[in-house]
Amino acid sequence: MRVLGIDTSLRSTGVGVVESRGSTMTAVEHGRIHNADRLLLSECLRRLDAGIRELITRTHPDVAALEDIFFCKNARTAMVLGEARGVVIAACAASGLPVFAYEPRRIKKAIAGNGAADKLQVRKMIMALLALKDEPQEDAGDALAIAVCHLHHQTSFAALEPKPI
Amino acid sequence: MRVLGIDTSLRSTGVGVVESRGSTMTAVEHGRIHNADRLLLSECLRRLDAGIRELITRTHPDVAALEDIFFCKNARTAMVLGEARGVVIAACAASGLPVFAYEPRRIKKAIAGNGAADKLQVRKMIMALLALKDEPQEDAGDALAIAVCHLHHQTSFAALEPKPI
Repeated sequence: MRVLGIDTSLRSTGVGVVESRGSTMTAVEHGRIHNADRLLLSECLRRLDAGIRELITRTHPDVAALEDIFFCKNARTAMVLGEARGVVIAACAASGLPVFAYEPRRIKKAIAGNGAADKLQVRKMIMALLALKDEPQEDAGDALAIAVCHLHHQTSFAALEPKPI
Repeated sequence: MRVLGIDTSLRSTGVGVVESRGSTMTAVEHGRIHNADRLLLSECLRRLDAGIRELITRTHPDVAALEDIFFCKNARTAMVLGEARGVVIAACAASGLPVFAYEPRRIKKAIAGNGAADKLQVRKMIMALLALKDEPQEDAGDALAIAVCHLHHQTSFAALEPKPI
């Protein structure tokens, strides 16, 4: 199974494609879709949409996994994050991918065994789990963690199988 | 000039295409993209994306206009509205349309001459301005009002020309 993990934001969306074969997981590709501050909102969203669709066409994932967000500082921040998140979800769904979402605690627990693990612990574990030689860019690393979390829930917790969003 | 007005929401997005020729405005098409409650979020967003792109391909608008939203009851509502709004903006931008946004007061003022006009006043004025025989569905009427607001600002207030988002 091949999972596309996405760590969504308007200016820097992390992406990571992870494949599992038996008990082995491999990072097929990881990186980020970056939008410079000077770009209009509509251009940022267009680039995000095109970037996700192009990545799916090129790497053929079976499913997409995102972070679930329940809390935001304020409604304005939530609106902007929602705009980026909606584009990502629609791009995956338009490409025929089921989409799953996981709470941050669940992602950290799946990777580092502890829902309160810090970012550094999660990144070190991701590097070990995927046998990465170089440290991934921060948002790309978070995206790989989301993809691994989905694989973990598919294989270890069939009884607690997550529902698509 | 042909304007696509969009009144965005996850479950019922109003759309209205208005054409201006000289001092005459005509409603080319209006309606809504409806998503039943039982549909998953990803399917709602996919349908919204496909619906907007299909409408643009079929009716060839030059520009899109939306409502600007500064206030939301809470972050969760803002996130969901943002998700729908992001999809709509990206679908317009992917089709090459510049996107403009207007505050609700500005839309009401452009249509009914009063920023505090109620929904009924706005709808009656839209029917008169576009010589509609039948009352449009509520969200479709709001979308037509947004399109007319954009045309109004293009023609009457060149000095206050709105900026694309």
